[in-house]
Amino acid sequence: MRKIAESTVRRLSLYLRLLEEFEEQGAETVSSEALASRGGTTSAQVRKDLSFFGSFGKRGLGYSVGELVRRLREILGLGRTYRVAMIGAGKIGSALVQYRGFRQRGFEVVSIFDVDPAKIGRSWNGLTVQSVVSLEGELRAHPVEIAVIVTPADAAQALTGRCVALGVKAILNFAPVQLTVPDEVVVKTVNLALELETLSYALTNR
Amino acid sequence: MRKIAESTVRRLSLYLRLLEEFEEQGAETVSSEALASRGGTTSAQVRKDLSFFGSFGKRGLGYSVGELVRRLREILGLGRTYRVAMIGAGKIGSALVQYRGFRQRGFEVVSIFDVDPAKIGRSWNGLTVQSVVSLEGELRAHPVEIAVIVTPADAAQALTGRCVALGVKAILNFAPVQLTVPDEVVVKTVNLALELETLSYALTNR
Repeated sequence: MRKIAESTVRRLSLYLRLLEEFEEQGAETVSSEALASRGGTTSAQVRKDLSFFGSFGKRGLGYSVGELVRRLREILGLGRTYRVAMIGAGKIGSALVQYRGFRQRGFEVVSIFDVDPAKIGRSWNGLTVQSVVSLEGELRAHPVEIAVIVTPADAAQALTGRCVALGVKAILNFAPVQLTVPDEVVVKTVNLALELETLSYALTNR
Repeated sequence: MRKIAESTVRRLSLYLRLLEEFEEQGAETVSSEALASRGGTTSAQVRKDLSFFGSFGKRGLGYSVGELVRRLREILGLGRTYRVAMIGAGKIGSALVQYRGFRQRGFEVVSIFDVDPAKIGRSWNGLTVQSVVSLEGELRAHPVEIAVIVTPADAAQALTGRCVALGVKAILNFAPVQLTVPDEVVVKTVNLALELETLSYALTNR
């Protein structure tokens, strides 16, 4: 399959949200206009986005909801389970594990690490918090595909480097730092403070 | 002042995090190397980013932490208070109001709206939940600069349009939909499901 631009992947994810709502409501078909509205785009773009994966739509009838949900879930890799290491045993990690959408998408936390002696050895959402000193041993014995970085900013880059050296292929970063990784590793950063500050910047400098 | 690219604003926000940490630790100066490491960039880029705002650094001594914190907070518009309307009286909005960083940045929720009769009239973090029917009257009497959209996706665009018509200049969007707004309005979307799905896409299609 051709490599798809990130902007397209993001639209596919938005289309999928709409399709899941339609499926829940028992709708059988969806128009490209409805999908366009959800993705903030045009019907022509929707047809183009979906044509990457073969033709689903029937002229005048729209797209089959069930079929499109299945195909989009497959394309987005949502049928699989991803093994996740949580680096940092704090509040954000805990909220994340309890977030229904995390498990729904197959993200399964299999190990958790912290540097704080007060946390190491304690139970955390059914797992035992391990020392970051054990990171190499643990991830070699039980590899993961994703590391979630929820550490202070000054520790994040070094821990990311260690995870990448251990074969981690994707990083979900909540630390307020821009992580540097090799090209083949994917990083997504979620940083609410940064979003708030780009808003306040824009409001102040209009 | 020249218009600064969003990528630069995001780095400034990351520099500020580091500077605040240094300030807390009592450090008086910071090197461009330390700032570069936090922003995932080079010292040359740091010097370029900061030169937009006049020269702060002293060769061989680095930047004054206190002075740079003050200037960056000013540039990012963090000395002000922003009046915020919360559209949707749900869990995300509640978590947001309780998030220290929200108030710290001057984001003050002054009104809250919902469509659910069970919620309207109830107290919510010290405010009374109003019907979205009252949106126009309330925001004309008590204007806000920012609307936080925490509604189901299918309601988000229409409510955004109503807020924009009432003079709202910035939207913080948590609904899983790409909002369309006029050029002069800023939108930031925070969508964890979407970040997870771009990760799973990347892992599946390597």
